[in-house]
Amino acid sequence: MTVVIDSPTTTSDYEAHYDPAKVLTHKSFRVLSAGSPELQDKTANIACAYTPDHQVQMLQKPLFPPRAGEVVVHVRATGICGSDVHFWKHGHIGPTMVVRDTCGAGHESAGEVIQVGQGVSSVKVGDRVAIEAGVPCGLPTCDPCLTGRYNACPRIVFFSTPPYHGTLTRFHNHPATWLHHLPDNVSFEEGALCEPLAVALAGIERAGVKLGDQVLICGAGPIGLITLLACRAAGCAPIVLTDLVQSRLDFAKTLVPSVRTVLIDQSWSAERTAEEIRKAGGGELRTALECTGFEGSIRAAIYSVAFGGKVFVIGVGPSEQSYPFGYCSANEIDLQFQYRYANQYPKAIRLVSAGLIDLKPLVTHRFPLEKATEAFHVAADPTQRAIKVQIQD
Amino acid sequence: MTVVIDSPTTTSDYEAHYDPAKVLTHKSFRVLSAGSPELQDKTANIACAYTPDHQVQMLQKPLFPPRAGEVVVHVRATGICGSDVHFWKHGHIGPTMVVRDTCGAGHESAGEVIQVGQGVSSVKVGDRVAIEAGVPCGLPTCDPCLTGRYNACPRIVFFSTPPYHGTLTRFHNHPATWLHHLPDNVSFEEGALCEPLAVALAGIERAGVKLGDQVLICGAGPIGLITLLACRAAGCAPIVLTDLVQSRLDFAKTLVPSVRTVLIDQSWSAERTAEEIRKAGGGELRTALECTGFEGSIRAAIYSVAFGGKVFVIGVGPSEQSYPFGYCSANEIDLQFQYRYANQYPKAIRLVSAGLIDLKPLVTHRFPLEKATEAFHVAADPTQRAIKVQIQD
Amino acid sequence: MTVVIDSPTTTSDYEAHYDPAKVLTHKSFRVLSAGSPELQDKTANIACAYTPDHQVQMLQKPLFPPRAGEVVVHVRATGICGSDVHFWKHGHIGPTMVVRDTCGAGHESAGEVIQVGQGVSSVKVGDRVAIEAGVPCGLPTCDPCLTGRYNACPRIVFFSTPPYHGTLTRFHNHPATWLHHLPDNVSFEEGALCEPLAVALAGIERAGVKLGDQVLICGAGPIGLITLLACRAAGCAPIVLTDLVQSRLDFAKTLVPSVRTVLIDQSWSAERTAEEIRKAGGGELRTALECTGFEGSIRAAIYSVAFGGKVFVIGVGPSEQSYPFGYCSANEIDLQFQYRYANQYPKAIRLVSAGLIDLKPLVTHRFPLEKATEAFHVAADPTQRAIKVQIQD
Amino acid sequence: MTVVIDSPTTTSDYEAHYDPAKVLTHKSFRVLSAGSPELQDKTANIACAYTPDHQVQMLQKPLFPPRAGEVVVHVRATGICGSDVHFWKHGHIGPTMVVRDTCGAGHESAGEVIQVGQGVSSVKVGDRVAIEAGVPCGLPTCDPCLTGRYNACPRIVFFSTPPYHGTLTRFHNHPATWLHHLPDNVSFEEGALCEPLAVALAGIERAGVKLGDQVLICGAGPIGLITLLACRAAGCAPIVLTDLVQSRLDFAKTLVPSVRTVLIDQSWSAERTAEEIRKAGGGELRTALECTGFEGSIRAAIYSVAFGGKVFVIGVGPSEQSYPFGYCSANEIDLQFQYRYANQYPKAIRLVSAGLIDLKPLVTHRFPLEKATEAFHVAADPTQRAIKVQIQD
Repeated sequence: MTVVIDSPTTTSDYEAHYDPAKVLTHKSFRVLSAGSPELQDKTANIACAYTPDHQVQMLQKPLFPPRAGEVVVHVRATGICGSDVHFWKHGHIGPTMVVRDTCGAGHESAGEVIQVGQGVSSVKVGDRVAIEAGVPCGLPTCDPCLTGRYNACPRIVFFSTPPYHGTLTRFHNHPATWLHHLPDNVSFEEGALCEPLAVALAGIERAGVKLGDQVLICGAGPIGLITLLACRAAGCAPIVLTDLVQSRLDFAKTLVPSVRTVLIDQSWSAERTAEEIRKAGGGELRTALECTGFEGSIRAAIYSVAFGGKVFVIGVGPSEQSYPFGYCSANEIDLQFQYRYANQYPKAIRLVSAGLIDLKPLVTHRFPLEKATEAFHVAADPTQRAIKVQIQD
Repeated sequence: MTVVIDSPTTTSDYEAHYDPAKVLTHKSFRVLSAGSPELQDKTANIACAYTPDHQVQMLQKPLFPPRAGEVVVHVRATGICGSDVHFWKHGHIGPTMVVRDTCGAGHESAGEVIQVGQGVSSVKVGDRVAIEAGVPCGLPTCDPCLTGRYNACPRIVFFSTPPYHGTLTRFHNHPATWLHHLPDNVSFEEGALCEPLAVALAGIERAGVKLGDQVLICGAGPIGLITLLACRAAGCAPIVLTDLVQSRLDFAKTLVPSVRTVLIDQSWSAERTAEEIRKAGGGELRTALECTGFEGSIRAAIYSVAFGGKVFVIGVGPSEQSYPFGYCSANEIDLQFQYRYANQYPKAIRLVSAGLIDLKPLVTHRFPLEKATEAFHVAADPTQRAIKVQIQD
Repeated sequence: MTVVIDSPTTTSDYEAHYDPAKVLTHKSFRVLSAGSPELQDKTANIACAYTPDHQVQMLQKPLFPPRAGEVVVHVRATGICGSDVHFWKHGHIGPTMVVRDTCGAGHESAGEVIQVGQGVSSVKVGDRVAIEAGVPCGLPTCDPCLTGRYNACPRIVFFSTPPYHGTLTRFHNHPATWLHHLPDNVSFEEGALCEPLAVALAGIERAGVKLGDQVLICGAGPIGLITLLACRAAGCAPIVLTDLVQSRLDFAKTLVPSVRTVLIDQSWSAERTAEEIRKAGGGELRTALECTGFEGSIRAAIYSVAFGGKVFVIGVGPSEQSYPFGYCSANEIDLQFQYRYANQYPKAIRLVSAGLIDLKPLVTHRFPLEKATEAFHVAADPTQRAIKVQIQD
Repeated sequence: MTVVIDSPTTTSDYEAHYDPAKVLTHKSFRVLSAGSPELQDKTANIACAYTPDHQVQMLQKPLFPPRAGEVVVHVRATGICGSDVHFWKHGHIGPTMVVRDTCGAGHESAGEVIQVGQGVSSVKVGDRVAIEAGVPCGLPTCDPCLTGRYNACPRIVFFSTPPYHGTLTRFHNHPATWLHHLPDNVSFEEGALCEPLAVALAGIERAGVKLGDQVLICGAGPIGLITLLACRAAGCAPIVLTDLVQSRLDFAKTLVPSVRTVLIDQSWSAERTAEEIRKAGGGELRTALECTGFEGSIRAAIYSVAFGGKVFVIGVGPSEQSYPFGYCSANEIDLQFQYRYANQYPKAIRLVSAGLIDLKPLVTHRFPLEKATEAFHVAADPTQRAIKVQIQD
């Protein structure tokens, strides 16, 4: 069956279709305050957003009927990502992603299909789905889209990356083809966690991590912990994990008892840290998966891996960093970097469904949608020791 | 700018759009005979086709206005491929590609854009283009399309593969995004030859052929010769080339004087042939690019490469073949196979334009479009010693 | 410290050093019979051997002092490999490995170092070690040795491959550098099983199997089961396993409960078998690890994997086999083959020690060294349903 | 045939054998001055060396008979490498390679075999050979040696890297197995140039450069120019080359007329430089081969390549460098580094002999051995515009 929609032949019509102005200038759009009745109205499309003046606030957003090829998803679980907090607090990531207007948060989401547009056959009402939050243009003139590397698509609409509103909303319109079915044994909570899992899996795939590899994981935050789970599932041995906070390493031990942890003292030099890491590894390490993005940690990773080893940086950090060129050169250390992911969702869901990766323990805090701003404050407060904060509806 | 076309969200609308019934049942469709006046009418959309009863004949086809995203190309040069001749003579390739109705031939084409449909911005009237003859669905639900391997798309419309009419026609409607600009220094003749070059380049890329590799090329037909040119451009040394016919090897020598040729005696065993090949190579061979598809040649290639070597089969041959399993196993010989190509046209054109691959000597016979059936008879007649027969208009 | 030994600069001195004639013509060499007192003498270097006339018999072998760089290992556990049985029953594998004289069996061994030669520093008396049974020449003029692919070394001495006597003997002299330390938590039994594990790991590494891959394993014999364990450790999901015998599949289920088994009916065509395999897989399969070497099974594997998939043959089978060329070609199926292994032992031991691969359940039968011929008869008798028969001392 | 030599089983005996103390404390060792008669004595083993106090001077070295497995080479051509000059002027490269005593220079050499030690069969007196100047330990306990990455061998003896005396000497004792035959059509001059060619080829191989790749080469010094020749031979198109000096770019144009040159203005920012490079490339660049090692150039390379591109640093530069992490991260830029080479000499000689790479124009200055110090002063003086200075004997 064929239907009529805007043509994707010469431009990404997704950019036009998801133009945030449609939301921000809509008559039903409004910013809500603590007592707003909409917050209690289960039919209202409430959402959580950050603003250029570093507020996090609740919104009421319009609800559009699905166009051809699109479905409406009732978002049932959304995790807060470090980038959500960063946009709120700092207003930008790098020079190109800048919060210039109120922008809905959230891109780690799963939900239920409640309405389908014309021509949709891949999902139906009632289906439980994970939402892949980045929608590339898909044009044959787009080299990244044509070559299997759609995370590089320059026209990608990534929900919650300004200016596009995010999926931390009650009802979200999404192209049917960018939804992924959740098997019965995968919950919405886990479905939402498939997003950071996709990040970790993309890193592991590009880093070439495989059975029996000796790996270092730097940082025991959400991405570090999910990377740990994924490396364990991939048969890495040994796995060394570093962090500055003992309680995070302890938590990691409950996830993967065999992990070898190194509590880093910030007074240590990178070389000294590397010495401790090598000692914990008990031999050469082949690959470091760096999940903090901090120069000091990346430097320590460089000194930790063997000749010919790889430091694969999943984390995002300060724009300019200094590295030990001479050491990299004399030891053929490869430095690689990760930007989001492509083609990882089906694998992520498969691994969770098969029981090879258990994401459930990662959700330490849960909030109803109407309390999403509260969730954000918990996520941003280190004393709360949250791993993953989810908003569920 | 966005326009209205059939939606590609749930099926490949290309399959419907290029439905051959639209041609075959059209009021202006007719089979032409030798004296038909349409053959002399430069405005008529004449074409050459093969039929289920093994005829090759001229047709008059309807001319459709371009839909949105589509352009009309005046086809200026088209080469005859071995598969064209095979469809004519044998009526099928494998069990799935069967000539069940009159089907226009040709998929090695280049031409000039003479009309553009709505929303087209990548090309304009007057542009000189190579036509990529396979148009995949491009749907995000299509794993091959999503992962950069669109030659595997199950919904691909490949012009001249039954039932889709080919590009050996005067006017051909094509999606603008599947045309490739020809630089000024690349002729239509060369543009058409970029199709078999794309085949060879896909093989070379997947076989991992690189600078300094010692390679064997089996078969000095068009694909073998183009593979030879490409391997020479890739810096292979030495290159050994085999064939059953001395004149073809002699021709190869004129293209690449340093090639080491082996004239194969059909009475030789595969092991004996391999011995001659190794002798010509003067050392170990790493990769064989097999361009005949015949069991005997593939077997000889297997015995020719070193431990851990690769036999990469570009040629198409008999469905069932017997290989020396024991030898492959004891020598870790990799066998790989090629099906068309993906993402090769831009590179092909770049290499030709840069002067690294000179395709011009390959065109040994040229015919005007109205004499296309004559061209087919020459291409099918081994005594003519044609390398590449082109129809030009 | 440097010492004086035969030079490895221009030839492999291992070939000369391990010349079987030194054993067969030695004054203390003798063939033992059932009641021979040597069988009860714990200081005698008794061994088990196959003969050109298809006998399996016990021998007394001489005991040589270790030369420089060499150690004497008291072999504590040795598994019987299918190739051992094959040499016994058929007298050869392929055209080059032929039993021309009495030849000691066994190459899956672990033991204890009891004496060290001059200049040995990597191991000491009392060390528990796995024996890597193939000793390549290591010469810088040997391309395989120089490029990390020492299994291809044409001068390799592989114990138990004729003419070199095997490790199924009480005392075995071995180059110290080709022994691998066993951690305390890895038993001799497991150490011996690291040999077939090395085979499986080499296949998995070369096949590129990785986290989340959907794999097919053909054959539930020892190599198939170890491959299953390794694929599970590597995070494959799903894993489909085939065999002709239900009890073997049932056993596999006890090892990896999530494995999806397909009992193959020998009357099925390869296409029909593939249909059942695909059904069990519930989706596309990426890689088949073929552990039987039989044409029918390889053909079924070819039809089972997706476009661009790989059939990686670990098993050894009949020398000549017929494959569906046309299907391979139209689906870009890669065929790869495995010959022994290189650089796998350290990884194998690491994975076993880390608890990621549990080999212990595979040993179904154990015999003392003096009853090694009995062990061979059990291993060769399908009604015994042995998985791995080990001789322990 | 086997012979008696020092055993390589537990340590690299090369380290002991080539102990520089044997030279420095030998009774025939002396430092020569301008008028020393030894300089005119064609039988004297004169050599050129650098010293801890930054002198470059001529020496007379003892002449040792070849041990088993070793040959004496009359060195006929040696190029001066940037590292030779660096050791002379700066006394060290990195923290580990320090000139602590007089140390013979030179590692880019070819010559003639004039005497062979016991057991040598791979070369004979009169053979013309290139000298591979790094001799790894080759022990099976050495992971780099065992896995084909012998440039990482921690026990490698690399002639001219302190403390090991170099090959810029009249007579050099070398392990026969680390010599490479020169075909008749490859001169000593070219044979010596195979050393920097091996560096470039190692970079190209590890960077994965292949037919049709769009590459950037930074720096038109000897390594940059040889990399240019090799990329041209590998079929790269286009190739952009940068330098700070127009005359070097002009010279490059004479080697490869199609190269697109960019003269860099040191006042430009890295982003500005990248803009000029992209403009010259006329499209996306896939891989940058950075041959200067300077931070500014590496930064410009990072900004020049496309998403997913690679900056492969062959050059050696300051130990600490600052890179644009954010850009690398958002564009998945891979940074890789090169340390010497492994397994490149046979390929280098093959490419030169086949005429695919013409190294001859690179030698701009030639000196007799007795004037080697003069050669060093020319090589170190930028106003001389030397590309490659060779000492010939």
